[in-house]
Amino acid sequence: CARHAGVKIKQTTRFPLPKGYLDDVDACCVIGGDGTLLGVARESARRQVPIIGVNRGSLGFLTTFSADEARAHFDELLQGSFHIDRRSMLVCSTGPRSHDLALNDVLIKDEVNSRIVRLAVFADGELVTEYSCDGLIFSTATGSTAYNLSAGGPIIHPSAGVIAMTPICPHTLSNRAIIFRETVKLRVLNRSEGARLLVAMDGQRNLKVGVGSPVEISIAEQRLPLAQRVAYSHFAVVREKLQWTGNLVDNSH
Amino acid sequence: CARHAGVKIKQTTRFPLPKGYLDDVDACCVIGGDGTLLGVARESARRQVPIIGVNRGSLGFLTTFSADEARAHFDELLQGSFHIDRRSMLVCSTGPRSHDLALNDVLIKDEVNSRIVRLAVFADGELVTEYSCDGLIFSTATGSTAYNLSAGGPIIHPSAGVIAMTPICPHTLSNRAIIFRETVKLRVLNRSEGARLLVAMDGQRNLKVGVGSPVEISIAEQRLPLAQRVAYSHFAVVREKLQWTGNLVDNSH
Amino acid sequence: CARHAGVKIKQTTRFPLPKGYLDDVDACCVIGGDGTLLGVARESARRQVPIIGVNRGSLGFLTTFSADEARAHFDELLQGSFHIDRRSMLVCSTGPRSHDLALNDVLIKDEVNSRIVRLAVFADGELVTEYSCDGLIFSTATGSTAYNLSAGGPIIHPSAGVIAMTPICPHTLSNRAIIFRETVKLRVLNRSEGARLLVAMDGQRNLKVGVGSPVEISIAEQRLPLAQRVAYSHFAVVREKLQWTGNLVDNSH
Amino acid sequence: CARHAGVKIKQTTRFPLPKGYLDDVDACCVIGGDGTLLGVARESARRQVPIIGVNRGSLGFLTTFSADEARAHFDELLQGSFHIDRRSMLVCSTGPRSHDLALNDVLIKDEVNSRIVRLAVFADGELVTEYSCDGLIFSTATGSTAYNLSAGGPIIHPSAGVIAMTPICPHTLSNRAIIFRETVKLRVLNRSEGARLLVAMDGQRNLKVGVGSPVEISIAEQRLPLAQRVAYSHFAVVREKLQWTGNLVDNSH
Repeated sequence: CARHAGVKIKQTTRFPLPKGYLDDVDACCVIGGDGTLLGVARESARRQVPIIGVNRGSLGFLTTFSADEARAHFDELLQGSFHIDRRSMLVCSTGPRSHDLALNDVLIKDEVNSRIVRLAVFADGELVTEYSCDGLIFSTATGSTAYNLSAGGPIIHPSAGVIAMTPICPHTLSNRAIIFRETVKLRVLNRSEGARLLVAMDGQRNLKVGVGSPVEISIAEQRLPLAQRVAYSHFAVVREKLQWTGNLVDNSH
Repeated sequence: CARHAGVKIKQTTRFPLPKGYLDDVDACCVIGGDGTLLGVARESARRQVPIIGVNRGSLGFLTTFSADEARAHFDELLQGSFHIDRRSMLVCSTGPRSHDLALNDVLIKDEVNSRIVRLAVFADGELVTEYSCDGLIFSTATGSTAYNLSAGGPIIHPSAGVIAMTPICPHTLSNRAIIFRETVKLRVLNRSEGARLLVAMDGQRNLKVGVGSPVEISIAEQRLPLAQRVAYSHFAVVREKLQWTGNLVDNSH
Repeated sequence: CARHAGVKIKQTTRFPLPKGYLDDVDACCVIGGDGTLLGVARESARRQVPIIGVNRGSLGFLTTFSADEARAHFDELLQGSFHIDRRSMLVCSTGPRSHDLALNDVLIKDEVNSRIVRLAVFADGELVTEYSCDGLIFSTATGSTAYNLSAGGPIIHPSAGVIAMTPICPHTLSNRAIIFRETVKLRVLNRSEGARLLVAMDGQRNLKVGVGSPVEISIAEQRLPLAQRVAYSHFAVVREKLQWTGNLVDNSH
Repeated sequence: CARHAGVKIKQTTRFPLPKGYLDDVDACCVIGGDGTLLGVARESARRQVPIIGVNRGSLGFLTTFSADEARAHFDELLQGSFHIDRRSMLVCSTGPRSHDLALNDVLIKDEVNSRIVRLAVFADGELVTEYSCDGLIFSTATGSTAYNLSAGGPIIHPSAGVIAMTPICPHTLSNRAIIFRETVKLRVLNRSEGARLLVAMDGQRNLKVGVGSPVEISIAEQRLPLAQRVAYSHFAVVREKLQWTGNLVDNSH
């Protein structure tokens, strides 16, 4: 039906997208789960091509259009009757020419499975603290309902451009999630002797980082243009996904 | 010694400060704990009079000068060798002519001790969710290390002007703390039948709010001018107060 | 239909049950929610009269028979085709002649709403610690999925006869829930100056306790005989009530 | 000085201990941290040789004698003026002839670093639930203050012989720690497609477990005989190690 409307279409099932794949494209329709959309986000942000996320199963945090909905309203979508939510992303640098974008989160842990990592974190040059933990999650507002939430971090509304840093199983029990302002420059130093770091972007792209190399994280200049229905309510999605409907614990006090 | 330096001084032990007490004052030195400083913050913010917080016991999050330090460097302080940290505050409205400022937090719970409260929260007119809980804490960055932290909320750097909303003992276990952007307008409706609300500002000033009256919370126009030493490091204070020094749990994995 | 089967019936809607109401009774069918059943548990435990909990709405942790199920299988129930789960209870003493039973939990907090309480806890005469918190919850395994869970405590299988002590909003962030063995004798001393305590049994019966009176808590001799269907699975109930069906957070890592 | 007292001594710095090393030994003095003691616990439990844990640095949860104390009271120790705390241990079976003891905990996760694992857990044949998480920690009371605590589990007094099962970063947010009774037989099935499991005992001994092999965990018959001073207070150690001294959060409410 899109073809009938005179729209030129190209499609792929290769992820991550080949570089330049979105160069001459006006919009990108991702059909799949949130994981699929994460695999396209980087390229979409670089070219500023809006993503329409269509979920064939249960709705996602990112893929908020159902297949039925997308089909029923496709003409309207083509005519632009949607809202573009410009989501902040993280840029993570692990060396002079090595940087990457993440829509949800950057995870830093020891290269060796199940080994504790020691990480010193600096915010705008000021020491935050030195962690002994299973890993550190740096999350955008968009990623706050993903890994960050499992690790005990807070939910962040997408309009708050902050970064959440949440430790996984920290040894110091008062090491809670920390919220930094949008413009913060974070710098992570590896304090584990002789251990390389694993740095994972959106749980999909993994880098190994040598002992002496700092990892730098901040909010990227590019934002992800994410198409939402005009009546989109972020908390309606959160309520459904996190099952906030009704009292789960039957307290009688 | 301040008198010798030609400074005019007035002092009081009455809290909260009488209205207008700071009218002709250039700076206000609070000697006591964080609780004492909270009792002065509202008046200080209204008049934009900087507070110097001096703690005679262990340092506080707000009273970051020790008595010795204040004495040793008093002349320098008088000459302005400090940094003014402008901390965001909450304004809470419970009716047409009833509004108040809070530096740390606004707590909303049932008027009756140990009774569950049902509260519907709207952010900029959008329903967030309806809580069944012991109470809701709305916290500034400054208050994030106080009641908010005890209730499971995150630590927020003072330069992030967000609001944290943290439920106390929520029935729905996925009801985590939520971070809202600085400009959000929050509105809380009482959904408990026939119950009045207790609204507490900074844990000090308690209001009773009738069944039909919404409570509105947002970041105030006024900020609190808080004097800090030039070399002040926020995370150094957090590390000391939360005892982030060393590994508390001796994990061997 | 119960009458047709030759069963003598008496019924009441008065709660808590008048003392002695269950004296000549073989079984007690409670129709309502978990709160209703809690109101009968004490009398049922004293007389060792089994309770059949029937829930007309959504199933509870305690009222695990649906109305349809109870109706369809009533004859079998009368003939004893159920299993009796003997749930441990707490006995709480607040003075020489003042003690009471609780099936779920005993809550101790300050008599004044929203005031912090200081409580010293001793286990078999050994100091555990001194808490500054909003309150302390002492929970049975049965109560572990109620208030205890909201406050961050663990889930306890009913066959483990332990006591969980969970602080509400503790100031010391490493003050986690503590699990004590079945035979422990707990003693709570009020360390708040001039403040009386509120002691609440199962969130229903509230006592005021004077400044110098210790509160003593241990597992009661009496257990609650709770009827369950023969194929009862405790974790099936927990999975349904806590919505453990499916992945709520869509982590892609 | 021990030699002077007519005590025969042998010593080693090899860990884990060679099998049979403790065969003709009356007591075993471990000098080091908790990790060192964990490396001896298995052999000590098999031969029922009491361990005296001496810590040269800051005290541990297990190594509760300071070097000074051990030196000053060595004669008394030799004469048996100590108390033997018999700590429960886990036995973990990963196949017909493959089983091992753990004093603190058994960790199960995906063999691949940073990959989510799906695990179905059965308690005495009853399905508990199916987890999607970073890993599952099975902890004794002794291990409850180690990895279990970092992951959000409760503190368990050593006299309570229960098992705590605590998920790491579970997707389902209501998946809290679960406490099982002492006699429970736990069975863990790998539900991740084509992934082997990593099973770690006390964070020291790692096994790889194939796709179809269940992991079985229960309380071991053998207990660890751990020597403690006569006036040993478990909570005194917990208070010191977890820094429960004083109010960390300065709430003024």
